[in-house]
Amino acid sequence: MGEPVTFYFDFSSPYGFLAAREIDALAGRQGRETIWKPMLLGAVFKQTGTQPLTNIPLKGDYTRRDLAREARRLGIDFRLPDPFPFASIAAARAFYWLWDRDPAAAKDLARALLERAFVGGDDISKPAKVLAVGAAQGLDGGALEAALQDVAIKDRLRREVEGAVAAGVFGSPFVIADGEPFWGYDRFPRLEAWLETGGW
Amino acid sequence: MGEPVTFYFDFSSPYGFLAAREIDALAGRQGRETIWKPMLLGAVFKQTGTQPLTNIPLKGDYTRRDLAREARRLGIDFRLPDPFPFASIAAARAFYWLWDRDPAAAKDLARALLERAFVGGDDISKPAKVLAVGAAQGLDGGALEAALQDVAIKDRLRREVEGAVAAGVFGSPFVIADGEPFWGYDRFPRLEAWLETGGW
Repeated sequence: MGEPVTFYFDFSSPYGFLAAREIDALAGRQGRETIWKPMLLGAVFKQTGTQPLTNIPLKGDYTRRDLAREARRLGIDFRLPDPFPFASIAAARAFYWLWDRDPAAAKDLARALLERAFVGGDDISKPAKVLAVGAAQGLDGGALEAALQDVAIKDRLRREVEGAVAAGVFGSPFVIADGEPFWGYDRFPRLEAWLETGGW
Repeated sequence: MGEPVTFYFDFSSPYGFLAAREIDALAGRQGRETIWKPMLLGAVFKQTGTQPLTNIPLKGDYTRRDLAREARRLGIDFRLPDPFPFASIAAARAFYWLWDRDPAAAKDLARALLERAFVGGDDISKPAKVLAVGAAQGLDGGALEAALQDVAIKDRLRREVEGAVAAGVFGSPFVIADGEPFWGYDRFPRLEAWLETGGW
């Protein structure tokens, strides 16, 4: 089995949501594990001078249409939460807290949070909402609530975002496999071909 | 046979080059003709406040790598011309002059210009280079040289660029099929599925 592939995403990224539903199955078909690394696009966008897709004239309208089209194709009852974009700090902190204890549970929490945002339309920027989703996943509410305010977890997330930028990540989703970067949900077929063939 | 699909591109767009090599075959497989509409990304980017991909930190490095990777996959001896990005006004004017006379010849000219830029590495921003490529395609050199300075052709290109922006075009390549927009070379598989199925 090869090295794990690293899956970078922002909890507020709708294409990241679509990608999160597929990345583990894709990697698994090619005999790979995955490491999930949520990051904060706001910090990344400062590097590239860009902004959320949906805020950009023309591109924003297209993106809304493309997301709806992709979701229909996949049979997902997709919605863009309101407000959008939203702050994903609480979700990302909760993830890293849990990842260090139980990576599989952290992925389950991430999937539940993304589903709550992009199917339920809920505002997961609110810590209370993150705690509610965590409770539904059977997590210790007191420990999770403390983690969201824990300086060590705050530092951890900051380091992870810095690490993502240092690794060249500038969007969500973004996958690095054997050192090779793949940006965007629409590059997933190419990512899988790369893993299958060993590259070209 | 359905309505033709409209293929928007900028002669200075490397992903537009990759797309131009495939769009007619893709459309033809689904029983469609194509209308080619070169435009000027500089004018379009003013709408969206963006800039050429290769100028953007992180994203520029990724784009260079992704282009090289895509070209290897396709067996193309790709190079990014120097200077890049370059002005594509002369190429676009030549195209529209010829399109009104012979659309098939205009596509051949466009393909030859793109090949000259992205395989030959030549600077096709220069009118002399456009004339040389035109001569190699058997075009009337005097008529083409006059066309590059013709006010009517200049106005035509300006109107086409305005029309592209009005149609929602914000990047290259960009295809509109039966009113449905598809941005990017990496959306070509989805474009073909849409044409094949009638949409979803």
